Amino acid sequence: MAKEYVVGVDVGGQTTKIGVVNAKGDMLADATIIRSDTYGADAGAYIKALAAAIKESIAVSGKTPEDIIGIGVGAPNGNYYTGEVAFAPNLEWAANGSVPFAKMLEEALGCGLRVTLTNDANAAAVGEMTYGAAKGMKDFIMITLGTGVGSGIVVDGKVVYGHDGFAGELGHVNVVRGGRACGCGRKGCLEAYCSAVGIARTAREWLECTDEPSLLRLLDPEKLASKDIYDAAKRGDRMALRLFDYTGTLLGRSFADYIAFSAPQAIVLFGGLARAREFLYEPMLKAMNENVLNIWKDKVKIVFSSLPESDAAILGASALAWEL
Amino acid sequence: MAKEYVVGVDVGGQTTKIGVVNAKGDMLADATIIRSDTYGADAGAYIKALAAAIKESIAVSGKTPEDIIGIGVGAPNGNYYTGEVAFAPNLEWAANGSVPFAKMLEEALGCGLRVTLTNDANAAAVGEMTYGAAKGMKDFIMITLGTGVGSGIVVDGKVVYGHDGFAGELGHVNVVRGGRACGCGRKGCLEAYCSAVGIARTAREWLECTDEPSLLRLLDPEKLASKDIYDAAKRGDRMALRLFDYTGTLLGRSFADYIAFSAPQAIVLFGGLARAREFLYEPMLKAMNENVLNIWKDKVKIVFSSLPESDAAILGASALAWEL
Repeated sequence: MAKEYVVGVDVGGQTTKIGVVNAKGDMLADATIIRSDTYGADAGAYIKALAAAIKESIAVSGKTPEDIIGIGVGAPNGNYYTGEVAFAPNLEWAANGSVPFAKMLEEALGCGLRVTLTNDANAAAVGEMTYGAAKGMKDFIMITLGTGVGSGIVVDGKVVYGHDGFAGELGHVNVVRGGRACGCGRKGCLEAYCSAVGIARTAREWLECTDEPSLLRLLDPEKLASKDIYDAAKRGDRMALRLFDYTGTLLGRSFADYIAFSAPQAIVLFGGLARAREFLYEPMLKAMNENVLNIWKDKVKIVFSSLPESDAAILGASALAWEL
Repeated sequence: MAKEYVVGVDVGGQTTKIGVVNAKGDMLADATIIRSDTYGADAGAYIKALAAAIKESIAVSGKTPEDIIGIGVGAPNGNYYTGEVAFAPNLEWAANGSVPFAKMLEEALGCGLRVTLTNDANAAAVGEMTYGAAKGMKDFIMITLGTGVGSGIVVDGKVVYGHDGFAGELGHVNVVRGGRACGCGRKGCLEAYCSAVGIARTAREWLECTDEPSLLRLLDPEKLASKDIYDAAKRGDRMALRLFDYTGTLLGRSFADYIAFSAPQAIVLFGGLARAREFLYEPMLKAMNENVLNIWKDKVKIVFSSLPESDAAILGASALAWEL
């Protein structure tokens, strides 16, 4: 019988989630979850535990390794070319060096299953193309709006990896010259403004620099999160609405420049902050069309991920494995 | 005998140049040149004359159509997917509509030779990859610094055409938010600052807004051109040197953002303004490395076209035809 299933592995800072997926993008069973953060700097121990959990996930799904085409992994700083995870600040076992993840996992599995990996945003792009909102599209740009801003660029049906495997860092394209400090050590990056953390920073700045009344003033500014801004906007809070307007405008302007690069059919959004689509969509679309070169005005769509949010990262990672 | 030659056609606003090229990138004879601007809006008449000139060029090179693999054309607004030249302001016969150039030329030739076309910057990129400074590179970005700023992006050995064939318009990426007007109708585009026309505009602005002494004050400001700034810089004129510094800095900053997109091995420069490499190179490289994400610092090269300048556009166009 032909192999009809793939395994997706979503490596996060705290947990790693595993699922067996069919060609339609359905998970055969609930995700198997292990902690990523209990192995300290011991990459070997973590990967051994992961291999065991993958086998368990396959068994729980009623399958055997023989039914599986391969294993796709989405990991922060995962490199498609080398199969390594390198200098990933949120993964203690890969924070200070380079871990030959794919090779180690194949060895730990010891059953001939092959492993392919990439970073989480590229995995999300492949997931949307294989099962989701970008199905049938050959040219699109995936933007993940989470704690940070990630991106996966698809040109002619293939993820752009670039010379070294690290292409698609649109979260670190400059959006405000000389602007606020970004976690990367530079200034004015898109991520510093348009991530979940970024919009909360904007809120704190506005609360501090103005006297404008807002529901957000009832909260501890240090703990203020993008979810609070969303809740306030839902209740009609004007500052909260303007925060989304500002954030969406910066995103739309950036999209206009990205379009000049790869002429995509659509920008596809995913991630925690993208949940605020009712507040972000209009300002994004307006700023994009106001700033884009005429030939693309009103031609490029902004769409939102259509994958079930809880499993999207697993599905994205799994989609990589169909090419094995 | 195997076919070993291609024809390159460089369509410009005033003249069209044609050459027969071998696999090493040598032209077999001097370019055949016809006027592009004597046919008014009559695309048919122009293309008929072009077909005759192509046949003449093949004959002058001592070859017959049977020796030729195909014909590559670089034309403003040339679309690789559709073979059309559309709304090209500098070509009267294609200024107000869409001309099915490739199809018409194939018919006018009437000898079974196939025609492929793209815009001039993409043709330049293919030329550098096939015969020039990007030989052996699979990921690079070509920037043409002429009257305007064009670009051709190569990812994994292939030109990025995008969804509609128009990808790679980096001359119209924003470089100064709300900055000076660009010919495209928008504000602050790279082309408005870093083209040959752009640096002359900067010079006029600086001459008008300051009293700084400069050799450039001896010239009619209306006629001041990038070549004059180059000549002044050669003579050590401080304003001229700072003009290149400023222009190079804007270019380098932009390159830093492009790298975040496609992680190229190199940025390859070509065009009239790129001749000022001794003044542009250092500020470009410095600004690029100061603004790029850490993982690419000091890793991406800036190189200059290595094709003979007079024939570079023909060679670039010809390179397209090897794929026919």
